[in-house]
Amino acid sequence: MSYAADVLNAAHLELHGGGDAELRRPFDPTAHDLDASFRLTRFADLKGRGCKVPQEVLSKLVSALQQDYSAQDQEAQFLNVAIPRIGIGLDCAVIPLRHGGLCLVQTTDFFYPIVDDPYMMGKIACANVLSDLYAMGVTDCDNMLMLLAVSTKMTEKERDVVIPLIMRGFKDSALEAGTTVTGGQSVVNPWCTIGGVASTICQPNEYIVPDNAVVGDVLVLTKPLGTQVAVNAHQWIDQPERWNRIKLVVSEEDVRKAYHRAMNSMSRLNRVAARLMHKYNAHGATDITGFGLLGHAQTLAAHQKKDVSFVIHNLPVIAKMAAVAKACGNMFQLLQGHSAETSGGLLICLPREQAAAYCKDIEKQEGYQAWIIGIVEKGNKTARIIDKPRVIEVPAKD
Amino acid sequence: MSYAADVLNAAHLELHGGGDAELRRPFDPTAHDLDASFRLTRFADLKGRGCKVPQEVLSKLVSALQQDYSAQDQEAQFLNVAIPRIGIGLDCAVIPLRHGGLCLVQTTDFFYPIVDDPYMMGKIACANVLSDLYAMGVTDCDNMLMLLAVSTKMTEKERDVVIPLIMRGFKDSALEAGTTVTGGQSVVNPWCTIGGVASTICQPNEYIVPDNAVVGDVLVLTKPLGTQVAVNAHQWIDQPERWNRIKLVVSEEDVRKAYHRAMNSMSRLNRVAARLMHKYNAHGATDITGFGLLGHAQTLAAHQKKDVSFVIHNLPVIAKMAAVAKACGNMFQLLQGHSAETSGGLLICLPREQAAAYCKDIEKQEGYQAWIIGIVEKGNKTARIIDKPRVIEVPAKD
Repeated sequence: MSYAADVLNAAHLELHGGGDAELRRPFDPTAHDLDASFRLTRFADLKGRGCKVPQEVLSKLVSALQQDYSAQDQEAQFLNVAIPRIGIGLDCAVIPLRHGGLCLVQTTDFFYPIVDDPYMMGKIACANVLSDLYAMGVTDCDNMLMLLAVSTKMTEKERDVVIPLIMRGFKDSALEAGTTVTGGQSVVNPWCTIGGVASTICQPNEYIVPDNAVVGDVLVLTKPLGTQVAVNAHQWIDQPERWNRIKLVVSEEDVRKAYHRAMNSMSRLNRVAARLMHKYNAHGATDITGFGLLGHAQTLAAHQKKDVSFVIHNLPVIAKMAAVAKACGNMFQLLQGHSAETSGGLLICLPREQAAAYCKDIEKQEGYQAWIIGIVEKGNKTARIIDKPRVIEVPAKD
Repeated sequence: MSYAADVLNAAHLELHGGGDAELRRPFDPTAHDLDASFRLTRFADLKGRGCKVPQEVLSKLVSALQQDYSAQDQEAQFLNVAIPRIGIGLDCAVIPLRHGGLCLVQTTDFFYPIVDDPYMMGKIACANVLSDLYAMGVTDCDNMLMLLAVSTKMTEKERDVVIPLIMRGFKDSALEAGTTVTGGQSVVNPWCTIGGVASTICQPNEYIVPDNAVVGDVLVLTKPLGTQVAVNAHQWIDQPERWNRIKLVVSEEDVRKAYHRAMNSMSRLNRVAARLMHKYNAHGATDITGFGLLGHAQTLAAHQKKDVSFVIHNLPVIAKMAAVAKACGNMFQLLQGHSAETSGGLLICLPREQAAAYCKDIEKQEGYQAWIIGIVEKGNKTARIIDKPRVIEVPAKD
């Protein structure tokens, strides 16, 4: 990762020679001649993946499109193309190409600011887009496009500071993933928006269609839950009324640690996790984002070929965030599996005998834990969390 | 184009058995149980391509990214890949791939409602995204993603009527272009937004790098200007104060005709225009969108290898819209070449001896005129419109 000295000097100052988020100082608006009260997250009324159109509304809206896909599959067969076109409902679109057995694997995602550090926001947005490729076991991305909406409410000064930092973070994350950002689109919009498109052209053996779970498999999760809770709790430090609701269960220091753990987690690529899916014969995976652990588990379960169901026993949660979520009543529904995550971990179906080795390998390579959180039973393609799941407190790493 | 009887019955009623926009009745909100005052264009404060970040601001913002592209080119050479990575500033990104000389040609665009007919809005959005591929002579698209933001201000009823119609229009346009929509993303946002991503995997001979203009070439434009003027004038029919400014130069009937001509033009694919670029040895092209004719002509001129300049003499404009623009003072800057267009025509550099045949061929195949609007001179890679350009009044077709 290199920085041209003449560009983004302020950003440069905040980096202590590496890409590790844990080593970065918090974003200081005044270091960029912005008002101390500047908060990137105020440029949208919704946060991160909370912006998604609700799952059931979406299903209804896309039904008009969905029904045409069977016609496409027939067309593909007519042309003697063996690979079915895979579309809405999975993390990526997979499109058979005219050229020698290749296919295009493609995904797009965009959302609103979830953290106040523009550089980290860019990294998180990029990691989040790539995560859809990784969920299908694709480890190499051929190109990224960046989609950016500049808030109409930003001053010119704010825009000139913030947007290049977001872009730089996005680009650095792409470089870390071994790809580059060539192309994109920028518009102005009431809310600041950041996202992208990731595309790979590959052989069919490079991706894993997530529909092969069998009874006896176990479910592995590669990042802790609670990112949405952590970013909200962090904002409440400045809001006494909100803070009073949670101050009995958590200290300011706890929340700051959780926030940094969340930023670090959200900006971390699921690339090693994807690579190891091949090594340990994963039967399918998805990434955890706006619909929460249970929402995505249910979608994954619904796509299985065999009559299986997913049962989740363990919930790894960023330290203290389970307590914060409880103190907020039903607001987050974290322990019910509905709390939105941004750039969350992969939820992977692995053969039982491979799962421990998978978790060990990921920890060895990345220094981060993965967890066995549930099992695959015989069932009717649904997913559930048991009545009193075990909460695993995941400490901030430092 | 086929419609399932059980879906979108209302949309069905408005279609008289074909894809020709000229044959469609105007969108009637009450036919969908919406209030008669429903206007899709009210769900954003900016219209169509007017939402783009200004060209000079964009250049500044992306400079941080731009400087890394030379490094990428070097990398490409290091890996013995002959095709340079082409990025920001051109209509598409062109990315050399790992597989047998193939490259990924990719583009994205999204914008705000410009017309009140949701189905037509979907068609226009799709045609507009594809237009970037066509500008590079690429005639086949392998996949499209749809990007959609549902306005937070829409009622549930409005959303359930409007969004499927937009999606249907987008999809129908994709089918007309011989491609399909597999994948995308939907969010909620203050402003309604619609757009997409178009990707093609092709051999290098399938695209035309737009940098080969030579002195003596002529410039051809494949659609009339004035779409932005027409959609604004159409909205002013309901706004007496605005209407008074233009009623001396134009009748309500004129404006309705111009509006339908604009909708038809914006939803028309530049695909035949792209195909003929190969047949008539085009030296390069771009599509006319948010930065207006002159803005895009200047960008195209700046990318030329030879020391050439573009001089524009003729401005084909949707009938009466030049007069409307003049009556509005400097608001549109239509005759100065700055009026934003949505899904505009291709501006093509053609060898002088081929241009007339190109225009004749496109008219024969599509029934629409194309115009020779200027010439390529020796110069310093700029573009200009002459002092008193000839305005060609382009009548509504029918």
